This record gives sequence, C-alpha cells and structure tokens, in this order.
Amino acid sequence: MLVTADKLLMLVDGRYSAECRLNNPGTDVITLTTEHPLAEHLSDHGTLFTDASALSHLAWQTLEKQCSVRLQHWDASVLRVHKYPDEIAKIRQAAAIADEALRTVMPRIQPGITEKALADHLEMAVRQAGGSKTSFDTVVVSGTRGALPHGRPTDKKLAEGEIVTIDFGAVYQHYCSDMTRTFALGNVNPELKALYDTVLTAQQSARDAVRPGMRCQELDAVARDIIAAAGYGGYFSHNLGHGLGLDVHEAPALSPQNTQSLEPGMVITIEPGIYIPGLGGVRIEDDVLVTESGSDVLTQSPRAWKDICL
Amino acid sequence: MLVTADKLLMLVDGRYSAECRLNNPGTDVITLTTEHPLAEHLSDHGTLFTDASALSHLAWQTLEKQCSVRLQHWDASVLRVHKYPDEIAKIRQAAAIADEALRTVMPRIQPGITEKALADHLEMAVRQAGGSKTSFDTVVVSGTRGALPHGRPTDKKLAEGEIVTIDFGAVYQHYCSDMTRTFALGNVNPELKALYDTVLTAQQSARDAVRPGMRCQELDAVARDIIAAAGYGGYFSHNLGHGLGLDVHEAPALSPQNTQSLEPGMVITIEPGIYIPGLGGVRIEDDVLVTESGSDVLTQSPRAWKDICL
Repeated sequence: MLVTADKLLMLVDGRYSAECRLNNPGTDVITLTTEHPLAEHLSDHGTLFTDASALSHLAWQTLEKQCSVRLQHWDASVLRVHKYPDEIAKIRQAAAIADEALRTVMPRIQPGITEKALADHLEMAVRQAGGSKTSFDTVVVSGTRGALPHGRPTDKKLAEGEIVTIDFGAVYQHYCSDMTRTFALGNVNPELKALYDTVLTAQQSARDAVRPGMRCQELDAVARDIIAAAGYGGYFSHNLGHGLGLDVHEAPALSPQNTQSLEPGMVITIEPGIYIPGLGGVRIEDDVLVTESGSDVLTQSPRAWKDICL
Repeated sequence: MLVTADKLLMLVDGRYSAECRLNNPGTDVITLTTEHPLAEHLSDHGTLFTDASALSHLAWQTLEKQCSVRLQHWDASVLRVHKYPDEIAKIRQAAAIADEALRTVMPRIQPGITEKALADHLEMAVRQAGGSKTSFDTVVVSGTRGALPHGRPTDKKLAEGEIVTIDFGAVYQHYCSDMTRTFALGNVNPELKALYDTVLTAQQSARDAVRPGMRCQELDAVARDIIAAAGYGGYFSHNLGHGLGLDVHEAPALSPQNTQSLEPGMVITIEPGIYIPGLGGVRIEDDVLVTESGSDVLTQSPRAWKDICL
C-alpha cells in the first residue's frame, strides 16, 4: 500500500487484485506484472518510509536497486499499539470464541487422548464457535513435556496424575486472541500443585496491577518477583507477555527491559510460567485490555485449582 | 543455526531450548538471553553467509551493528530445490492425506453448505487423515467468487448451477502438499464447462510434458499457449506453478521468465487457471515429482468432468 499526502494505492499481484477491488471499493488497486513491477510505481517518490522489520533484506535491497527511491525505516507498530473501539470489539469476540472452544473441548481432556487429538478438537471448536481458525499452532504439552513452553502436540497420550498445558487462540475477523490454561488429571505430584499455585498468584497479581502509566518492565516484575520469591526464579524463561491484535505478537513486549508505559487501548497478554525439566511446567495466560481506569480482562475461562482439576 | 567447518550450533531463545535439545541429541543448543544475545555468539566469525530473503532488513542491520561480522547474502533455496528420498516420501504422504481428506469431504460439496464450513471440514479431515494441519489457509470460492484466485472462504452458500474451486494442502512431518480441484454443482453455464475443458487440457498437457532438462518457462508455456489458443490468454493471471517442500512455495517458480531447468528430485505444482470477472473461475492443480525418466504425479484425486460433477 502506497500512502502519499493525496492518494492511497494498493499494489498487488494478479492473484489478489479482483478480491482487493471487491473488498476496498473506492480504493485504487494496481495489478503488478513482470512488465510493470512494483519498482515502476514507486519511482516518482523521493523517500519512502516502510517498516524494515516487515521487509526482507533482499527485498529492501532489490527495491532500492530497481528504482531511484530511498527507503527509510519507520516503526509501524505505533499504528497498531493502541486499538480502536472496533478492533477491541473484534479481539473481545476472539477471546470469547477461545473461551467457548475450550469449554467445548474440556470434557475430552482426560487420560488416553493424545496431545494432537486435543489440538485438532480445539481447531474445530474454534471454527464452530465462529472463529476463522486458531491464531497460531496450538500448544498441547503433557507430563514432563510441560517443561517445553512452546512444545508441539505429539501422539503422546495424556495420563492420570499428569498436568497438561494448552496454549491456543482464535482469529475473528483477522484479530487474534491468545490464552493458556493448565489442567491437572487426577492426583498430581504436590510440587506441580505448588508450581500451579505460584503461577496463579503471579498471574492474578499481574492482572490486578495493570493500569495506564505503568512501565511494561514494572508489570513484568510483579509476576517475576513472586515466582523468584517462591524459589523458581530460574524457571520463568520468557517475558510476561506481549501486545496482541492483527498479529498474535505485537508491541508492547512485557519484558524486563521494556521501559515503555502501558496506555489505554493497548491489549496485552499476561502469561507467566514455570518450566522444570524432568518435572513439567505450568503457564496461565489471559488477554487484558488497558483502560483509563485500569484494565478489562477479555478471556474468561476458569483458572482456580478446583476448576482445572479434571 | 550456525554452521562452521567444524561445528554446528543451534541458537534459540528460552522458549525453545529444551525442545531443541530433545529433538536434536548430540547437537549443541545455546539459549540466547538478553545478557548473551545472538550477536555475542557470532562475533568471532569474519563473514557469515545467510539468506537475505529470510531475514528482515531491520534484523540484518541490527546484527551487523551489534557485532563485527559481515553478513553476505547466500541463496539457500539451492539446499531445498532437490528433495532427498525421505523428503519425497513425506511429500508423497502429504499428497495422499490431501487426497483422502478431499474424498472424505466430497459428499458435503452440495448446494446449501457455506464456503467456510467446507474449509473447516477439510481442515478436520486433513488432521484425521494424519496431517498435522493444512499447509495454508484453504481457498474455497464458489459462483462468481471463483474469479478470485486466492479468495478466502466466506459465509456464502454454494448454489445449484455454480462451480466451486477448492485449493488446499496437508502438512505431514513438516512437508506440504498443495492441490486444487474445481467442482460443478448440477447444470452449469456452458461457458464454465468450456473453461473447465480448457484448463484440464492445459493441465494434463503440462503434466505430460514434465521431464528433466526442460526449462521452467517452457513448461509454463505448454499450458499458457493452450489457454491463449482457446481465447482466454488474458485470464491466466499467475504462474503455472512452484516448487513445494518444507514451505508451500519454494524454488523453482514455473514462470514465463524462469530459464532454470527442471531436474530429478524437484517437486513442483502444476496449476493453470482461468478467472473471468463476473462469470467465475477454474483451477486444477497437482503436485508432480520430476524423475530421471519424466515425472511422477503425487496427488491422485479425480479431475475428469464426470468425476467433478456433483
């Protein structure tokens, strides 16, 4: 898309031009061809700003070589970090779809089902609840595999006494949700229960702490300090969360380094976890809208120990 | 992954290190942290070759700034363009899964079902047939929407007298298949039948023509010339096909410009199409392995007019 002071052009290849015209009435759609490539349409413009994280180095160099424009990096995440009300409504619906899908699939979270079958049922449940698809490859990890934060579902069967972590989301009208719940199957090792209690306390405390003006690193520290105080400081191996919208990972990163402040209209995930090789792992994740007065939690699936014991 | 004359290192963030160690016994896996980022591990190496199409311009510049290495573009597609026997076996299985999924879903391709519901059923059928997921967002376009080559499935219902194009694939052990079939629902406009006959002739002729030593552009021309001779030259708005493997789009491109020769071990799609705004469209696509003696067609779903009339 080329945006100038007085016009807006969509430049697409032949596979997409008819659909772009259909979906964007009133917008000029130009079909790129071998004879009339992108570079030709850009050549009149002295300097073009584009997000260098969204273009490969090869494409960047090729464009600069093919036409006389100068490309300059512009961090486009500023366009996305504050959500408009219609965007918030879509993310809220994507969160509701994830809640409904999990509710539908919960009776299947029992010993004997494979991790992959659970992931497949979630995919179908998301679609039947009105989602277009899941927002990323669903994570289902059980038993000691719970120590793999982003493990892919396998043919391993869930077993009595294990805990299982499910991380998935729904896409609704191009907007994503992202939610994690950890379930306990029967009588689990007391240390796993202790992990769960710690993560739940950390997650609830971070949820409660969200307010505009707070730095991302401060919010990360709320959860990280609780986990460290419980003796698991070395086992929370990722950030507390991330922004969420058209992409499942957007600004702002809730990292120990990010000094950016939370502002109304941001939608973030809050997802502390503890992963202990050989034992297992726990993660609990919700999607949270930052509001003028504090926060609004979009994902609603139960998290209390009694609710996740199946 | 850092590959030098005497070592191979996997460099990943904390979310992936346990799984990488589990899946790659004997390989050194290094966990990247804020204190010890990627740049630190690369600094000893004078020049590093990496594929500039696989790294954003921002990441490329940041790496060069953070460490003293010089990055140089190397087209890594050469590593993928010829498939090893075990890779071919996986693509063959991915093709068989797509065939089975389509066979399962075919009874549902009837007036009244929505495009989206068909796409959802295909997703589940692919997974139930042993695929991990579909290899890209399934295309289902019916009626005049058939003129959108990459149209997304909508809530539009299929209707008597329409044709519907379904383009989807399966992933099996990380390898992709990619297949398109167009179906006719009842009595269709004779011009749509004429389109179908033309596309089928073009596709069959291109399938039959595949042999090692042939240039990609020559193969494209086999189908393109037939479509042009039938009077539809302006309506075949994309390349004849593309390579296929770990990604659903790989080298070689079967484009009018590509002078590269086909060689044994390449796996390509052959997918001519005709798209007429206001009328509809037809595409037929198969996955084809280039062999020493010619070719081996991996996708097997029927394409004859009598088989696709439902």
